[in-house]
Amino acid sequence: MTRRIRLGMVGGGNDAFIGGVHRIASRIDDRYELVAGALSSTPEKAQASGEALGLPRIYDDFKQMAIREARLKEGIEAVAIVTPNHVHYAAAREFLKRGIHVICDKPLTSTLADAKKLAKAAEQSDALFVLTHNYTGYPMVRQAREMVANGEIGKIRVVQVEYPQDWLTNHEEFKQAEWRTDPARSGAGGSTGDIGTHAHNLARFITGLEVESLAADLDAFVPGRQVDDNGHVMLRFAGGAKGMLWCSQVAPGNENALRIRVYGETGGLEWAQEDPNYLWHTPFGEPKRLITRNGAGAGDAAARLSRIPPGHPEGYLEGFANIYSEAAEAIEAKRNGKPLPPGVVYPTIEDGLRGVEFIDACVRSSARNAAWVKL
Amino acid sequence: MTRRIRLGMVGGGNDAFIGGVHRIASRIDDRYELVAGALSSTPEKAQASGEALGLPRIYDDFKQMAIREARLKEGIEAVAIVTPNHVHYAAAREFLKRGIHVICDKPLTSTLADAKKLAKAAEQSDALFVLTHNYTGYPMVRQAREMVANGEIGKIRVVQVEYPQDWLTNHEEFKQAEWRTDPARSGAGGSTGDIGTHAHNLARFITGLEVESLAADLDAFVPGRQVDDNGHVMLRFAGGAKGMLWCSQVAPGNENALRIRVYGETGGLEWAQEDPNYLWHTPFGEPKRLITRNGAGAGDAAARLSRIPPGHPEGYLEGFANIYSEAAEAIEAKRNGKPLPPGVVYPTIEDGLRGVEFIDACVRSSARNAAWVKL
Amino acid sequence: MTRRIRLGMVGGGNDAFIGGVHRIASRIDDRYELVAGALSSTPEKAQASGEALGLPRIYDDFKQMAIREARLKEGIEAVAIVTPNHVHYAAAREFLKRGIHVICDKPLTSTLADAKKLAKAAEQSDALFVLTHNYTGYPMVRQAREMVANGEIGKIRVVQVEYPQDWLTNHEEFKQAEWRTDPARSGAGGSTGDIGTHAHNLARFITGLEVESLAADLDAFVPGRQVDDNGHVMLRFAGGAKGMLWCSQVAPGNENALRIRVYGETGGLEWAQEDPNYLWHTPFGEPKRLITRNGAGAGDAAARLSRIPPGHPEGYLEGFANIYSEAAEAIEAKRNGKPLPPGVVYPTIEDGLRGVEFIDACVRSSARNAAWVKL
Amino acid sequence: MTRRIRLGMVGGGNDAFIGGVHRIASRIDDRYELVAGALSSTPEKAQASGEALGLPRIYDDFKQMAIREARLKEGIEAVAIVTPNHVHYAAAREFLKRGIHVICDKPLTSTLADAKKLAKAAEQSDALFVLTHNYTGYPMVRQAREMVANGEIGKIRVVQVEYPQDWLTNHEEFKQAEWRTDPARSGAGGSTGDIGTHAHNLARFITGLEVESLAADLDAFVPGRQVDDNGHVMLRFAGGAKGMLWCSQVAPGNENALRIRVYGETGGLEWAQEDPNYLWHTPFGEPKRLITRNGAGAGDAAARLSRIPPGHPEGYLEGFANIYSEAAEAIEAKRNGKPLPPGVVYPTIEDGLRGVEFIDACVRSSARNAAWVKL
Repeated sequence: MTRRIRLGMVGGGNDAFIGGVHRIASRIDDRYELVAGALSSTPEKAQASGEALGLPRIYDDFKQMAIREARLKEGIEAVAIVTPNHVHYAAAREFLKRGIHVICDKPLTSTLADAKKLAKAAEQSDALFVLTHNYTGYPMVRQAREMVANGEIGKIRVVQVEYPQDWLTNHEEFKQAEWRTDPARSGAGGSTGDIGTHAHNLARFITGLEVESLAADLDAFVPGRQVDDNGHVMLRFAGGAKGMLWCSQVAPGNENALRIRVYGETGGLEWAQEDPNYLWHTPFGEPKRLITRNGAGAGDAAARLSRIPPGHPEGYLEGFANIYSEAAEAIEAKRNGKPLPPGVVYPTIEDGLRGVEFIDACVRSSARNAAWVKL
Repeated sequence: MTRRIRLGMVGGGNDAFIGGVHRIASRIDDRYELVAGALSSTPEKAQASGEALGLPRIYDDFKQMAIREARLKEGIEAVAIVTPNHVHYAAAREFLKRGIHVICDKPLTSTLADAKKLAKAAEQSDALFVLTHNYTGYPMVRQAREMVANGEIGKIRVVQVEYPQDWLTNHEEFKQAEWRTDPARSGAGGSTGDIGTHAHNLARFITGLEVESLAADLDAFVPGRQVDDNGHVMLRFAGGAKGMLWCSQVAPGNENALRIRVYGETGGLEWAQEDPNYLWHTPFGEPKRLITRNGAGAGDAAARLSRIPPGHPEGYLEGFANIYSEAAEAIEAKRNGKPLPPGVVYPTIEDGLRGVEFIDACVRSSARNAAWVKL
Repeated sequence: MTRRIRLGMVGGGNDAFIGGVHRIASRIDDRYELVAGALSSTPEKAQASGEALGLPRIYDDFKQMAIREARLKEGIEAVAIVTPNHVHYAAAREFLKRGIHVICDKPLTSTLADAKKLAKAAEQSDALFVLTHNYTGYPMVRQAREMVANGEIGKIRVVQVEYPQDWLTNHEEFKQAEWRTDPARSGAGGSTGDIGTHAHNLARFITGLEVESLAADLDAFVPGRQVDDNGHVMLRFAGGAKGMLWCSQVAPGNENALRIRVYGETGGLEWAQEDPNYLWHTPFGEPKRLITRNGAGAGDAAARLSRIPPGHPEGYLEGFANIYSEAAEAIEAKRNGKPLPPGVVYPTIEDGLRGVEFIDACVRSSARNAAWVKL
Repeated sequence: MTRRIRLGMVGGGNDAFIGGVHRIASRIDDRYELVAGALSSTPEKAQASGEALGLPRIYDDFKQMAIREARLKEGIEAVAIVTPNHVHYAAAREFLKRGIHVICDKPLTSTLADAKKLAKAAEQSDALFVLTHNYTGYPMVRQAREMVANGEIGKIRVVQVEYPQDWLTNHEEFKQAEWRTDPARSGAGGSTGDIGTHAHNLARFITGLEVESLAADLDAFVPGRQVDDNGHVMLRFAGGAKGMLWCSQVAPGNENALRIRVYGETGGLEWAQEDPNYLWHTPFGEPKRLITRNGAGAGDAAARLSRIPPGHPEGYLEGFANIYSEAAEAIEAKRNGKPLPPGVVYPTIEDGLRGVEFIDACVRSSARNAAWVKL
């Protein structure tokens, strides 16, 4: 039994959504122990939220936490940053410079300038930086990535990726919506930043291809909205593949309908986040095949991140937990001075920078009548 | 019992595909009688194909047929033109100018110039012109159109339409592929012309919106191919709606996966050609609803074109037959000097012209690095 | 071009449902010509219905039609019998004894005694007897049958077949319901006779196995209903396979949800009538495979009965037409003194007799507290 | 922050499957702390397994654990029993008689005699008894139950429930299969005991109806197998509803395909375990409705057990965790002398007894040629 990793948390107070998800994700495989937190933006709320969770050490703010934990003999080894986007940079920097590993929510930052500075800070730190592009933790996403890498669909020609939602169809006044539609806190991208980055990252993760240029037509359909709530994007990948990316928060009937289809010279793959235990593989000229998590035809990459037999669905929280467990593998390897075990993969600062570049490019393109721009 | 409409056919000889489809479609509702044909491009083949079908009157070519049938007392009242695209214009013109109704396969013509001339010819003729954009004949497509018109999803914001196939994934040498990948016969658009036009037409038909401008990134992924086999298109509709259109012939696992999703201010609709008896309706804030052909929630527009009870699927041929039967309604109304009965709708020369404009715009845009072009 | 088969029809007048289906089915492949009819149970209605269809020869009743047509030089070669069940026997007998081929709706008769007499009459006649168990005409049902015969799923262990509907959930007073719930006209079985026989026949057709004994628990859930509207049946097949059959007319949400699953020692098959262009094949220990009509992995038996490429769905009417076209193959072979072409299969009087035995056994079993009875 | 419940575990050692599931389930909502275990049937393995988990207190066997923990001031408050079935009774008894709450895997026991004795032991104990019929923890199962209770589908007529798997299609020699096919350890039922009980329990849970009598045709298709691997069961419920239950371990292509359909006088419901975030509701005469977890149309019963927004799937582990959290609610209420909070429901000893009666009735019926037997 390896000792659990001592974890702190910034953000994720009482009325936040994603903080609770991170906490469950960190618990599922029992490799973390949450021991400290600065859970809210005011000392009072931070205190109340910390007490509600029974946290051993509660701080007024992230800076205080970083300073004090770094001095403790048994201080936190890693911190989860789950605040609104505009806080990511300042918070992450404090921990990185003190050698505390950072597990940070996406997008990396609210501006490209911050993203670049943070990338530099991460480079200069000995600590790890893990970005929770959680959908890369789904076993069948790993399966897809492995199949592409193994050449099972041949050279890629076309990538269709989309992430429609409907929760912002109307003008809503609840907290989750509030900061996500405020450019000062979420960044210049609305749907592009919140979910388009997930789609972009998923496409990169599965195909191993980088977007070289894009043309984006962004809209804010709801009157008064300051950031895009719908994004239509055409993609050109290095190496010649082409793609389309659609993200929307105003598509009634869609909950979190992230879906990707990849077509190569000899076959296709299709995966949908809402039914994540399935992967369609369509080798050209053969019957369609439905591969299931841990079922026949699923390979090592998926099996590594799978807990239970096929037909017993694993979901969003398990996928999220896989990011935490991959991070634990990396943290423990580092702790023990060992190399990263084979197969361990997690989204890095580099992926975060690419994501913010994607948002920036979408906004730039759209401002120029959806002209093609380079990333 | 109304007398059957005497029908001729141009094209559709022994080794053609779509001719047989037209013949079945014309038979299903028993409103046509095929009595004459010029079924192939050489007199020998035309003769042999006509005999194989037991046609009463067989002609060497369409011009001969048009001239002679026009003189007969009981000559054909309508002609189905099912040749490769580049023949449509010349053939249709001959019949139109002799007052014989034309039922013509899509796209209208292989060039925009031809399309405009044919539109003029149709305008000057007393005969009807029906374009077999057959997917508009599916009952649940009519249902979708009716629901949009009735305001059931509110003002439209987003239209996602796609038509992927995989049959041209490799370089193939069979007849269907041959003329469709030859710009001299199919026109400048490959996938855009053959299937992109269907997608474009379907979007127009259901939403009632016209595409004002588009940006198209077209590719010919198969080496040596002279026309596009994949098209990525961003759409801007009059009135402010935005859309994406994807057509592909190189997407392994896709057969005829035409699919459309329409999102308005209060709800969404989704229909897929391969499962055509279903229509998803997703009113915002209510459970998703699956409407079935002739089932609960389906309205008059779908019922008009439905033959059998819900749960007994009607398919492609019945949808195609609906175009023929709508045409029969129009022809009979004309024959009897009566107005078109309420509810009767079929694709016209105008739709054909729009389709060729769409192809032309895609090709123009792509040639200019996918810049926005007006239609 | 082979001369069309001259066809007559008994039943199928103005307000009937299934007659129209038979007429379309006979037209789709252009191998029949409907030239005579006795379409209703009263001379007046028969006359009116015949005129509405523009029939050349209209008769007051089936006996008159059989007598006169048999004497004509160009009289009908085949007759479609599409009346309520209790008329099948008397009508079919008249044509069989005059050497006119019979295409008869199912179930064969309303009583087992009639079925046995009709089987004898068919045996003594030189004419063919074709029963329209239309679901056996679906290409993917043929595909399933071929795969079982080829041993692709190994020795069969388990057969799950069901046919739920919901149209008789309440007490309804429309014509289709009326005779189907009247034991004098439909026979002793309600749901068992109307749809249970389809399920039973489909299981036999695909697996090649005969039901040896069964235990049936039948219910009439709607107060006052005289025949069963729900049947639960356990099946024991010759050779040791076991099965369950469920038929229901009171299962809200089910339209014509005929579905069969067959499991052998090395794989499984699954087919659903409402999505008939797909067949799941699940070889044990391999990914699930989805075979599509005319798509990769589909074999000769399905291709024989397929008109159009994969992804363009064929439906109920095409499946029904396949029965008519198989019958046409048999009739023409007979006409020309040739053997039945290889691959041609259609439901026979023997299948009809098995079906009525099934209904009879269900009713007998249920009357004895669902005891096991032999067929 | 409420203090975590101190939990022990019996069974669930290194090479067991279900023990790991219980441990994750107990962690997800952070209401338990695993502090003691007797994880295997030999002291050596128990020690090794306990050390691998880093358990504070490791015991050689469950009796030792029960005795010592009961004496500790901070001893376990609850124990999870996750051994093979034949050990449940003896183990549970030891804890119940010392007032330690029992969370026990299903089926309750391997014999009906044991089940009755255990029911008596539970009755005489002050401790709670929770049976992990985990599928009742899925939010959409709660939704279905709530809808039935609210009369949304009317009086129930028909229940179709099934649980097919394929993992025992061949004779397998791995550990999970070994004890499950040994009547001495699993009990007289094979598939009926392992998964048929889940189906039976799910039907009871959702409908609120009890099975009064059944007729079961059980088979052991794999040569040499000593317990059934396929069960066909007809059900008669108190109050007149009828049902069918199918369980199988030899149905290739089925992983854990538990599925239930319930039909009442005014509507239907359908739920499938492999896609657990969806519930079909089919009110008669209205379009089908797809209700999603936490989505529109989902009610309080589902929301109580839901952690994340719609479209982010929760799976098997979250459903299992819900049983643990319901148990935690009950344990904490007991701890604080408070009544069970409204809405809290978990499977009890009574459900366990019903399950073993179901297995016993299936075996009895099958031995008598599938005669009807009372439960």
